[in-house]
Amino acid sequence: MNGAEALLRTAATAGVQVCFANPGTTELPLVSALDAVPEIRPVLGLFEGVCTGAADGYGRMTGRPALTLLHLGPGLANGLANLHNARRARTPVVNVVGDHASWHLSADAPLTSDIESLAAPMSGWVRRCSSPATAASDLAEAVAAAAEGVVATLVVPADCQWGEAPGPAGPAPAAASLVADPAIESVAPLLTSNAVLLLGGPALSEPGLQAAARVAAGTGCRLLCETFPARMERGGGLPAPDRLPYFPEAATGALAGASAVVLAGAREPVAFFGVPGRASSTVPAGTPVQVLADPEQDVVAALEELADRVGAEPTPVPAPAPALDLADGPLTGLAVGAVLAAGQPEGAIVVDESATSGLPWWLASAAAAPHTYLGLTGGAIGQGLPGAVGAALACPDRPVIALQADGGGMYTLQALWTMAREALDVTVLLCANRSYRILLTELGRTGVRAPGRAAQRLTDLSSPPLDWVRLSEGMGLPGVRVDSAADLRRQLGRALAEPGPHLVEMLLGQ
Amino acid sequence: MNGAEALLRTAATAGVQVCFANPGTTELPLVSALDAVPEIRPVLGLFEGVCTGAADGYGRMTGRPALTLLHLGPGLANGLANLHNARRARTPVVNVVGDHASWHLSADAPLTSDIESLAAPMSGWVRRCSSPATAASDLAEAVAAAAEGVVATLVVPADCQWGEAPGPAGPAPAAASLVADPAIESVAPLLTSNAVLLLGGPALSEPGLQAAARVAAGTGCRLLCETFPARMERGGGLPAPDRLPYFPEAATGALAGASAVVLAGAREPVAFFGVPGRASSTVPAGTPVQVLADPEQDVVAALEELADRVGAEPTPVPAPAPALDLADGPLTGLAVGAVLAAGQPEGAIVVDESATSGLPWWLASAAAAPHTYLGLTGGAIGQGLPGAVGAALACPDRPVIALQADGGGMYTLQALWTMAREALDVTVLLCANRSYRILLTELGRTGVRAPGRAAQRLTDLSSPPLDWVRLSEGMGLPGVRVDSAADLRRQLGRALAEPGPHLVEMLLGQ
Repeated sequence: MNGAEALLRTAATAGVQVCFANPGTTELPLVSALDAVPEIRPVLGLFEGVCTGAADGYGRMTGRPALTLLHLGPGLANGLANLHNARRARTPVVNVVGDHASWHLSADAPLTSDIESLAAPMSGWVRRCSSPATAASDLAEAVAAAAEGVVATLVVPADCQWGEAPGPAGPAPAAASLVADPAIESVAPLLTSNAVLLLGGPALSEPGLQAAARVAAGTGCRLLCETFPARMERGGGLPAPDRLPYFPEAATGALAGASAVVLAGAREPVAFFGVPGRASSTVPAGTPVQVLADPEQDVVAALEELADRVGAEPTPVPAPAPALDLADGPLTGLAVGAVLAAGQPEGAIVVDESATSGLPWWLASAAAAPHTYLGLTGGAIGQGLPGAVGAALACPDRPVIALQADGGGMYTLQALWTMAREALDVTVLLCANRSYRILLTELGRTGVRAPGRAAQRLTDLSSPPLDWVRLSEGMGLPGVRVDSAADLRRQLGRALAEPGPHLVEMLLGQ
Repeated sequence: MNGAEALLRTAATAGVQVCFANPGTTELPLVSALDAVPEIRPVLGLFEGVCTGAADGYGRMTGRPALTLLHLGPGLANGLANLHNARRARTPVVNVVGDHASWHLSADAPLTSDIESLAAPMSGWVRRCSSPATAASDLAEAVAAAAEGVVATLVVPADCQWGEAPGPAGPAPAAASLVADPAIESVAPLLTSNAVLLLGGPALSEPGLQAAARVAAGTGCRLLCETFPARMERGGGLPAPDRLPYFPEAATGALAGASAVVLAGAREPVAFFGVPGRASSTVPAGTPVQVLADPEQDVVAALEELADRVGAEPTPVPAPAPALDLADGPLTGLAVGAVLAAGQPEGAIVVDESATSGLPWWLASAAAAPHTYLGLTGGAIGQGLPGAVGAALACPDRPVIALQADGGGMYTLQALWTMAREALDVTVLLCANRSYRILLTELGRTGVRAPGRAAQRLTDLSSPPLDWVRLSEGMGLPGVRVDSAADLRRQLGRALAEPGPHLVEMLLGQ
């Protein structure tokens, strides 16, 4: 058995079932070895950002890493933006990056680059395999590292793939937990009726939300969730905390008057971008911040213990049915939100990279059928369509809805092809506002009310207009365009009723 | 004047005329400042790999850097693959990467990452601007560094853009040349009739080729050129050295029996990928290798001095007219080569990322009308379409032809939109063989004649087939499909005759 096969057999034993790949010559021994390890399904992406974003979506839904298989430094580089999102989501991901044979590196062949320097910023664990004999154990350690919510990148030179190996390796020991006990004692007295309990990470699971609701019922504290959750269970009567607002002054406003901010799986909130004259932290000055449990701790257990101490059974408040505005006229974000919240089926996974278009849906969907929400954690656009690929492969029995802005969608539109090839049950709702709207908003916030020509040229996507129906059909995926709420409701229903992927381009009015 | 405007005014004074941009919030002061500096044309790419590849193509054609404007670490990461190609091409490129305000970095906001670590592998010069007062002089130094054939990356935190600056900076002094004199004395005696003169970089300009031809006429030595030239003048009776073959055994075969290999602007040839049992160098063991001039030296002057010493006027050999095979039947690579070589207009710039489909055209085009060839220097696919954008902006009076493989084309297909938006005179000839053919070839070379299912799944692009006509139309660019040589000739003629961009999808038979 060669190193490549030993590596893949080790991965399969460790529970890896999918490999999102765009391989090249330096990965061919691994490609060949995949045939000897049928437990791992190879899925081709036509660009590496598709592979890494899919691995992120898959890992968020399964809690287990998918492999990615990437081609040297440039192939890894193409996948880094979505690895950035995965790192911020604490998603388990294992990247296997092929490299030149060890003895060929000093020749500085055309594709040579410093892979470790590229990998480090987006990886919590980086290693270069140094022998075919250790390829399997290196992979086992990568999986163990990833299991801690880390992006692990293993560089495997071609000679370590094709050379003889003793065989697969057993699982590596899990990393010793170094985290402290949750701070129940110090947190409980802070949770008065003026306090905010800010939820993130594992706190946004169903048991986490239920425990948090008990805490709120017992103390009167207010629940908020982080601005960009990696994964959150919503709908079906689940407690539905508001998100901390995106803009820093609004976030600070939401926390104004709080007697304390207690963090359960969330990080201390900071501005997404620094603004002149404002602090980085969005917590009002002087407000105490206390950690109940960090994301890497057992946040749910901490919340449940806290609820047992200070909580009470919440009074169930029946959620209102989502409003359904079917007025004729232009298709606004409000209409999209109402139609989707009313139409999304039970068990849907909604991958949200809707940017400026999706807030009405977020608000409306609190009252929707039970569903899972996946958000854009790291702000690197191009996560949505690949994330939907990964979520659909992770959960083949659940419908996946990608609520996708056009600007971000263009970054990794190649994901549409993988949806078609793998016949994934994904409905892409493409929000076509034909601009980088957020930039115009941000410009307005700096006092620029009438963008100049350069700013217009760099934010406008309407000239020429992107035709997402043709783009979708070009990738082998049926597409339709809608410009009214009634049409959207009809086409959404049709896309959800038929198996396989569909794209609905929504021409948004203001 | 703020730091952003001072930076851009400095760039304009230094000759920068284009900024290939995909900005975000941390670049907005620069976006606004572009309106105050109308000498710099902002060109939007819908993905950063388009921007960096366009900057590469632009720099190769003008010899001057274009700016790129990229959004923090993930935006830079998306552009790295084409910066890798630019680095290998020694193209002058200046990247300006916006970052969070300096004081906001420690907050580790969602988009924060280690930009320098990402930039270093693909950049010969990296700096972080530390004050609005130095933004202009930092940019001047970046331009001076780039002028030496370097990718220069300047990270400019948002506060260094919006803060007050004293004004633009003058040009930075050019880097002191540390290169030795060309080795005329030691090279001349080696150039016997069995020697090979291997040309690369500036030697592939018209004067370089003419001088090399004189050397060959005077000494009987054989001329070859590097496998992936950054830029080469061809056709119209210019000396047309063969390329050193891609596969290492073929490259070694081409050099077999050489009494010496003399390098003029080329690096010592090495295998593109290491192969078991073969050395990295493709020069036969024992063959002396001698450098006449490195790419960073004045290679043309060295060749001319050498020609004056040992050369003779070459006997003009009238090149045969390109063969034009218009037989009916499937559109083969051979037919594409013949039709394109015969049909390409004088002065065309051909951007070649044709991978396995383009060799017949390379051979046929030696006898074509005078044209400029731009190749895939670093092996990072996705260079061709963006490179064509940059070449067309650099040379608006010359037709640009992108001979593009489908696999690589999918990496940065967003470039089609920029072609349409800027109404660039680009004809995309899309080679649709619907597979990663090179990988099947490489698998075959390792003894795998019948790829297994995994290898098939990871190399096949036919299921579903990509419809490039729809993809092109989706980006606002007219497209047609051809499957015969006669059709190709007709559609090529039409695309070249009409202004603006066109795409011709060529369904290739074997």
